[in-house]
Amino acid sequence: MSMPRQMHLGAFILGAGHHIAGWRMPGAEAGSENLDLIKRIARTAERGKFDLLFLADAVNTRPDMHPSMVLRLEPLTLLAALAMVTERIGLAATASTTYTEPYNLARYLGSIDHMSNGRCGWNIVTGAFADAAANFSRDRHPPHDERYAIAAEFVEVAKGLWDSCEDGILTMDKASGQFLDAGKMHALNHAGTYFKVKGPLNMSRPPQGYPVLIQAGASDAGRDLAGRIAEIVYAVHQDIEVARAFSSDLKRRAVGFGRSPDHIKIMPGICAIIGGTEAEAKAKLAELGECADPKVALQVLAERLGHDLTAFDLDAPVPDLPPSGVMRGHAETLTALARKENLTLRQLRNVVAASMGHRLMVGTPEQIADGLQEWFEAGAADGFNVMPPWFPGAFDDFVDHVVPILQKRGLFRQDYTGTTLRDHLGLPRPEHPLAHRVLVGSMAASG
Amino acid sequence: MSMPRQMHLGAFILGAGHHIAGWRMPGAEAGSENLDLIKRIARTAERGKFDLLFLADAVNTRPDMHPSMVLRLEPLTLLAALAMVTERIGLAATASTTYTEPYNLARYLGSIDHMSNGRCGWNIVTGAFADAAANFSRDRHPPHDERYAIAAEFVEVAKGLWDSCEDGILTMDKASGQFLDAGKMHALNHAGTYFKVKGPLNMSRPPQGYPVLIQAGASDAGRDLAGRIAEIVYAVHQDIEVARAFSSDLKRRAVGFGRSPDHIKIMPGICAIIGGTEAEAKAKLAELGECADPKVALQVLAERLGHDLTAFDLDAPVPDLPPSGVMRGHAETLTALARKENLTLRQLRNVVAASMGHRLMVGTPEQIADGLQEWFEAGAADGFNVMPPWFPGAFDDFVDHVVPILQKRGLFRQDYTGTTLRDHLGLPRPEHPLAHRVLVGSMAASG
Repeated sequence: MSMPRQMHLGAFILGAGHHIAGWRMPGAEAGSENLDLIKRIARTAERGKFDLLFLADAVNTRPDMHPSMVLRLEPLTLLAALAMVTERIGLAATASTTYTEPYNLARYLGSIDHMSNGRCGWNIVTGAFADAAANFSRDRHPPHDERYAIAAEFVEVAKGLWDSCEDGILTMDKASGQFLDAGKMHALNHAGTYFKVKGPLNMSRPPQGYPVLIQAGASDAGRDLAGRIAEIVYAVHQDIEVARAFSSDLKRRAVGFGRSPDHIKIMPGICAIIGGTEAEAKAKLAELGECADPKVALQVLAERLGHDLTAFDLDAPVPDLPPSGVMRGHAETLTALARKENLTLRQLRNVVAASMGHRLMVGTPEQIADGLQEWFEAGAADGFNVMPPWFPGAFDDFVDHVVPILQKRGLFRQDYTGTTLRDHLGLPRPEHPLAHRVLVGSMAASG
Repeated sequence: MSMPRQMHLGAFILGAGHHIAGWRMPGAEAGSENLDLIKRIARTAERGKFDLLFLADAVNTRPDMHPSMVLRLEPLTLLAALAMVTERIGLAATASTTYTEPYNLARYLGSIDHMSNGRCGWNIVTGAFADAAANFSRDRHPPHDERYAIAAEFVEVAKGLWDSCEDGILTMDKASGQFLDAGKMHALNHAGTYFKVKGPLNMSRPPQGYPVLIQAGASDAGRDLAGRIAEIVYAVHQDIEVARAFSSDLKRRAVGFGRSPDHIKIMPGICAIIGGTEAEAKAKLAELGECADPKVALQVLAERLGHDLTAFDLDAPVPDLPPSGVMRGHAETLTALARKENLTLRQLRNVVAASMGHRLMVGTPEQIADGLQEWFEAGAADGFNVMPPWFPGAFDDFVDHVVPILQKRGLFRQDYTGTTLRDHLGLPRPEHPLAHRVLVGSMAASG
């Protein structure tokens, strides 16, 4: 009997919630610097048998940013801490290929994979905020296509560094005095367009071979990179048909790169506002809307469209703006929504305030489960990146009330069956490139 | 009644021990990737009321490196993990100013300080291994003086970034909807010789203001930087008079920069081989010597002298070699020792195999305590960086047998009295530069 296909769930942890006013809700605790809260959320996600938790990131700030993002713990160090207080759940974070060095990042992620016994995931981003350049002694944020070319080479280098050592390199034989098998260590000698990295990395191969690779590009270059390397794809969709077409396109691209379509999991974001009745859920949404800071909401929209919006009339239709080259998936989804529903700028701003452009689901636990099942069974999603409007209450509601329905319907696991994030996702551990070759040019020979 | 001056103790954790053959000892557990072992060592250090634990680092490797260093967990992510399994002990690691970005490193260290409630320390290094350049797309390792100029500016930028927010920025007032006080966030707008960093950092000011700053430079440029900014200075000394002169020089330089001599703690490294009798301790040293891999020992010496040594006669006197500009403190101490005791290259190699050039102490717990007390009372040290020859046994011996003697003599604390690393060291929390000024140009005004 073959296992029925089941959905994958990720918990997108933003300390103050995804709704910009979530932190003001009764019982909400605020703050992306609140480690105690984040630890509790992580444990709740694990109790809910989620595949992974996910921490977003950016390398710039301003005081009118989304309250979850303006001040935050750094995600890689936070993942390492969370590895110590969880047992099974996958641990993923965003890290930029534009503003880090492959040798450093390969070490951070590899260490997290080692310390968590194979639970690390890496959301590869090229940097959605052009302001970041000014924090890194750069005169300019590289343009879109260059950022993607850098990212593709960066990932290639990182994989090569993780392959520096073959499995079993540490022999630690006290009797003979052989600490390691030098023949299993290999220099990389990468010399590409953007990076020159000799290697080897000073670390054994991570338990998962490579951390699970996540990507969220929506542009052609982004989709191509995702098809080539991504094992999870985050997406922003409001429309099931658009989501289904996106998923088909990504899987087709993966197959084009010689990969199995089952090894690329499409996980759009959803923001669920849950009530005992539909009316109660709608009342919560209304309450959130009244609490939202309109200036912050407009700034969050401006980031997604890539344009300053302060000069536009809020009660006129959403203006026509050229693509900015940042957050393209958000921009396209929001623009399409505005056109389809003929929204004013104020209305679109309020949509973004609630879910940052992701699919907003408002209703009873059964209605939420129905909505997830519909997209999952239609092939619009392999799972969902759950973006609770506030913490901890709204996430507790999802885990306590929606997850059991999904489990009862056979759509989601009752318990973990494996130990690594790759196990949870049904992804193979990448073999070492030399696994089937006679070795030449090892460090033992070439020094 | 004023507190008598007490020494400070750091635990220098190298997974396989400091003696290159330590991992082969009975009961020794090996591996700088062995998280379970490192967690136990950290807890032992905390049981021993150590001020801090310390993780060294390098960003390159080769198979014939010291077994503790060839393959290792990345120290910043490891510190974050250790913050979750300890309560009071300080947590310090090496991070290079040559191969990281200030914005990234300020975030990693700031996060560790937040997550540990003020226990982070940063050992500022400029990179002792020229091979690192080839891992970072660089054509060359910057020369010594340039590395120190970069480091000085890097630290200035990092401090400025940690000061991005004044204390109390997060108001999180649900009633009014004010999440933060934008007037307490400030751009840095640093534009220097090596870095251009606008800021602000996306993080509240760390609990300690800045992590405790550690430095180990022995050159004139290194001492100057230490005098200016270091709060702990690691050093390599074999001779009490040289150590005393070094300590006086460093404190004099600190005073020259307007600092208190009490706010710069000189902590030379010591490697203690402890036995129930002196004969037993000496037998352990002999056993270690017999187990040492001579090729690895010569490579460890070569790193410290900054020259390939494979072509020299092992039984001739240590050759005259020009200063290499890397690991100068080690090179000077080892060269002086070789001259003073007329050592052959083989003999010096064996010294380095045991303690990597640091003070080797062999004897009973009382003898070790006497040796520490002598240096401490002579003003040659404010404390010691304890480098156990292997783990966990040799470190257990130190904590179980040497520490109680030091405590009984009133030379070391019976228990922690504070919660932060600054508390343990008696260092003030640096005030925010705007603490006493009328604010102008905040983000609220300049946006």
